[in-house]
Amino acid sequence: MNIIERIFLLRGLMKERGVDGYLIFGTDPHLSEYVPDAWKTREWISGFTGSYGKVAITKDRAVLWTDSRYFIQAEAQLVGSGIAMLKDRQADTISADDWFIQNLPSGGVVAIDGLTVSASDATVLEQKLCAKGLTFVQDMDLLSPIWDDRPKFPNLPIVDYPVKYAGIGREEKLAQIRKKLVETGAEATLITPGDDLAWCFNLRGNDIRYNPLFTGYGYIDQQKAILFIDPSKLEPVLKVDLEREGVYAINYDSIFSYLEEINPVVFQLDIAKTSSSIYRHISKRCQVISGSSIPTLLKSVKNDIEIEGMKQAHIRDGVAMVNFLYWFEQQFGREKITEIMVAEKLKEFRSEQDLFMGESFSPIVGFGPHGAIVHYSTTTETNAEVLKDSILLFDSGGQYLDGTTDITRTIPTGIPTTGQRSDFTLVLKGMIQLANMVFPENTKGYSLDTIARKALWDNGLNYGHGTGHGVGHYSSVHEGPMAIRQEFNGEPIRIGQVLSDEPAIYRAGQYGIRIENVIVCKNYCETDFGKFLTFETLTMCPIDRRLVDPELMTDSELSWLNTYHERVYNELNFRLKPEVKKWLSTQSSPISK
Amino acid sequence: MNIIERIFLLRGLMKERGVDGYLIFGTDPHLSEYVPDAWKTREWISGFTGSYGKVAITKDRAVLWTDSRYFIQAEAQLVGSGIAMLKDRQADTISADDWFIQNLPSGGVVAIDGLTVSASDATVLEQKLCAKGLTFVQDMDLLSPIWDDRPKFPNLPIVDYPVKYAGIGREEKLAQIRKKLVETGAEATLITPGDDLAWCFNLRGNDIRYNPLFTGYGYIDQQKAILFIDPSKLEPVLKVDLEREGVYAINYDSIFSYLEEINPVVFQLDIAKTSSSIYRHISKRCQVISGSSIPTLLKSVKNDIEIEGMKQAHIRDGVAMVNFLYWFEQQFGREKITEIMVAEKLKEFRSEQDLFMGESFSPIVGFGPHGAIVHYSTTTETNAEVLKDSILLFDSGGQYLDGTTDITRTIPTGIPTTGQRSDFTLVLKGMIQLANMVFPENTKGYSLDTIARKALWDNGLNYGHGTGHGVGHYSSVHEGPMAIRQEFNGEPIRIGQVLSDEPAIYRAGQYGIRIENVIVCKNYCETDFGKFLTFETLTMCPIDRRLVDPELMTDSELSWLNTYHERVYNELNFRLKPEVKKWLSTQSSPISK
Repeated sequence: MNIIERIFLLRGLMKERGVDGYLIFGTDPHLSEYVPDAWKTREWISGFTGSYGKVAITKDRAVLWTDSRYFIQAEAQLVGSGIAMLKDRQADTISADDWFIQNLPSGGVVAIDGLTVSASDATVLEQKLCAKGLTFVQDMDLLSPIWDDRPKFPNLPIVDYPVKYAGIGREEKLAQIRKKLVETGAEATLITPGDDLAWCFNLRGNDIRYNPLFTGYGYIDQQKAILFIDPSKLEPVLKVDLEREGVYAINYDSIFSYLEEINPVVFQLDIAKTSSSIYRHISKRCQVISGSSIPTLLKSVKNDIEIEGMKQAHIRDGVAMVNFLYWFEQQFGREKITEIMVAEKLKEFRSEQDLFMGESFSPIVGFGPHGAIVHYSTTTETNAEVLKDSILLFDSGGQYLDGTTDITRTIPTGIPTTGQRSDFTLVLKGMIQLANMVFPENTKGYSLDTIARKALWDNGLNYGHGTGHGVGHYSSVHEGPMAIRQEFNGEPIRIGQVLSDEPAIYRAGQYGIRIENVIVCKNYCETDFGKFLTFETLTMCPIDRRLVDPELMTDSELSWLNTYHERVYNELNFRLKPEVKKWLSTQSSPISK
Repeated sequence: MNIIERIFLLRGLMKERGVDGYLIFGTDPHLSEYVPDAWKTREWISGFTGSYGKVAITKDRAVLWTDSRYFIQAEAQLVGSGIAMLKDRQADTISADDWFIQNLPSGGVVAIDGLTVSASDATVLEQKLCAKGLTFVQDMDLLSPIWDDRPKFPNLPIVDYPVKYAGIGREEKLAQIRKKLVETGAEATLITPGDDLAWCFNLRGNDIRYNPLFTGYGYIDQQKAILFIDPSKLEPVLKVDLEREGVYAINYDSIFSYLEEINPVVFQLDIAKTSSSIYRHISKRCQVISGSSIPTLLKSVKNDIEIEGMKQAHIRDGVAMVNFLYWFEQQFGREKITEIMVAEKLKEFRSEQDLFMGESFSPIVGFGPHGAIVHYSTTTETNAEVLKDSILLFDSGGQYLDGTTDITRTIPTGIPTTGQRSDFTLVLKGMIQLANMVFPENTKGYSLDTIARKALWDNGLNYGHGTGHGVGHYSSVHEGPMAIRQEFNGEPIRIGQVLSDEPAIYRAGQYGIRIENVIVCKNYCETDFGKFLTFETLTMCPIDRRLVDPELMTDSELSWLNTYHERVYNELNFRLKPEVKKWLSTQSSPISK
């Protein structure tokens, strides 16, 4: 069945059900960043495979909104589908609500599947559509009836995540959450995001690619904790262990009947992370105190054991990276190397490492002009050969039992030009300035972002994405609540939080340069002016010195680089084969003006 | 009548009117920063003279909230008043609504004078109090009946502000506002802040100290513009001119009856800048589109003539400053110099300058430990003699017909210590880094603030206020909507906006160091990565090189300083007496490592 046929069937069903407009968000009931195949509704209805977008269908029009990362990809993937692309997050682009208001007659009916939209988004949408005389229906899944071969829900085992990695037992975590509930005046909460759920209960799964997570809900009140999962996913021994700790597993699908039958309690809910369907079920009978998801913040502040695990994972990841870099240098020019081969080799070298569980995201390998496409994803159609005299960018990471990694390195495939060296060095300066930053307690991420851009801005250069995202601990590689971006985010950067530091420059049609290390926030000093924090770099991998122009760097930036390389060598050398060790020794020797 | 007697009378009236709690915000019906004497209600009821605070009174308790700038001053001024001080803007301090909820029985009545509270603040207060079973009454002025000698409302002339200074005529300004009204879908707006009103109508007054503004409202729709002022304040010729341009003046007090009688129209209103009384009068009968005050943004972007005026005003202000600095150096040690004398001398030297109309704010002159009190205000009781071997900080400014100035300089009164030089140089580095900043169009002020702090943060130092405020053009010295601070503010810094650049360090009990220049945002370059902006410095006054440690500065910072001093000398030297010119020549000669 092709896209046109799918849309034809959907329109038939819309007509049958009296729906004039249908909006598809393409996420899952847990509003996950990566969704299980069963929930790839946006891709199924449109053919567009990007990670962000929404699709609106009426009887005679169909549009997809996506953002600048995906304009080129979406244009290509939508060819022949009858779906037009709209550029989201741009000032002059129409919003979904206004699009329906323009394209439907007054009294028209707009429907969504409320399971796949956050309560906050659905509320805004409802208010806007209703103000203009449209009817908004929230619980209408029009895809399941027409999606014959819809993939099954994942059914892989859920396993215990040992305290030796988690640092804190699930009883203590539940106690922390219960304490926060009392502080907010709530009696219960429902955990819906996969990463929060995995953290709370010290469990891991394999339901979503690149994430060691599982699909479920967690109900927590002062007396009990209930996991809504497929209980058959639990080994009997683990089930007994959980019950001994007051955690009971019941069927995933029973969440709605459970919420309908419990005695009303005051719920703490994050309405931006809870689906509209769940929210409306709860708020029908229970008072809701709206606030940030309690485990999101608790989880973001890593404990000492988690930080030590992250360090060890980054050391092993560094060994894999150095092995890859050495391999590349040996083989380049001898055999044909493509972008896909680079991705495969990176995975292969990581697989050799202890505790490696899989990749932490789909690697981005961009040669030459491909490197300038921010979220470039190599396919068999686009797969380019890595040739001489350009730039290769690769962004990849691993899931290790003791931590998650995310690293980008950019290397030249010939003698770099002055312009390439200048671009690289300005990006490097920003990366170092942020890694080296000292800042007062309670500083927000938006106050740090400019530091990583200053050297680029001074030269009329910039990059169109944030500088740093939170990184999970054997969990999602993107983790909130904090971030280092220009956009407002009220969450301060706290001691123990792990973030990426990844300034970049993209020269369309030429090359992309990005340098990404992972850093952890730690204490710096206390003075009459308060407590000050700084970062420690976790990533252990050399930065290609052929692209560095020392003349553009300050003494302290150069000293950071040389000290970093010394650390990298000291941490990695005894884990490398002699020839790789020798190679690393050269790569990490100091440079000066 | 002392404070205790005033509160006694107020409590009597509260009882008579059935009011259990009364809240006094202490601003005026235009929510002005500086208020005319007639509206200094907070000061009258409490004796506290700071610029920020609110007072709550019940039958047996009285409290004043103020912020950290005024803790010491408020504690002192409240002695014997029976009013307790509460530290506002601190995490563990009770809010006014909660204070009433705690101190009044359910069903109690809380009253305010809705003329002196913004509609947005009043709405929040009403919601919170009503949710807890208290009654909220908004239009109750309980002070006028007991304030016998309440000052008269100001009655000084309103004068035309010529286009040769304003750059744009009032007809064009009204046209700009009417265009924005159409864009927002509104039919009319009411201008309530004094600075917006003066800008819209190219008028100036003298109703408020330090501000060349007048009290009034401005009603603007597509057909007409009405000024609600005392029409007798206008010269007959000006009145005729205004009417020819479609601007009619009617009595200030008739605003309420006017709003009750007009045909309902859709109003654009800034609910944070409109009093609750006015807002409720309008919203009773008219639809309100809430948004930022239209003239606030238009006014903040200075036109070329305004910028040229600001430059010229800063040159004349610089002459006054240099004359003062020379005088100080000659007289220090010869005669007794006090903080008040410094303030008077600064005013005296400014008065000698063309187009000088008065000071732009109450000067802050802090010697030694006084300099470490951020908003220190010298009084005859605190007036300190300027002695040897410490630091003197002075922050002052002028209103000139063609612009407004605001400058802080810090000078040593002996041979500075290494610590003083280090502190001063770190502050100077921050000031230069911000002045030199290059940033993309649409950058928010919060993205620039850290740049001015980085050198201090690196050393575990900081300052507890914003880095930059907008500066008006022959208007209020503090002007929105943009600012350079850590706090979120969604307004980007735009070409033509004028801001202060004033990092600082305060060593409690020792000294304060602040260096403040005024800068204007201008175009820098356009590249493949978009438009980039930068700043040009308007302030023309040397920075004391005795406090500069060149070893702590980068080459580009030193080069900025030397180039700046060269500019200062070139702009000022031919306007100075020979001996002052010679002195400036020494002060502005280059320094190096």
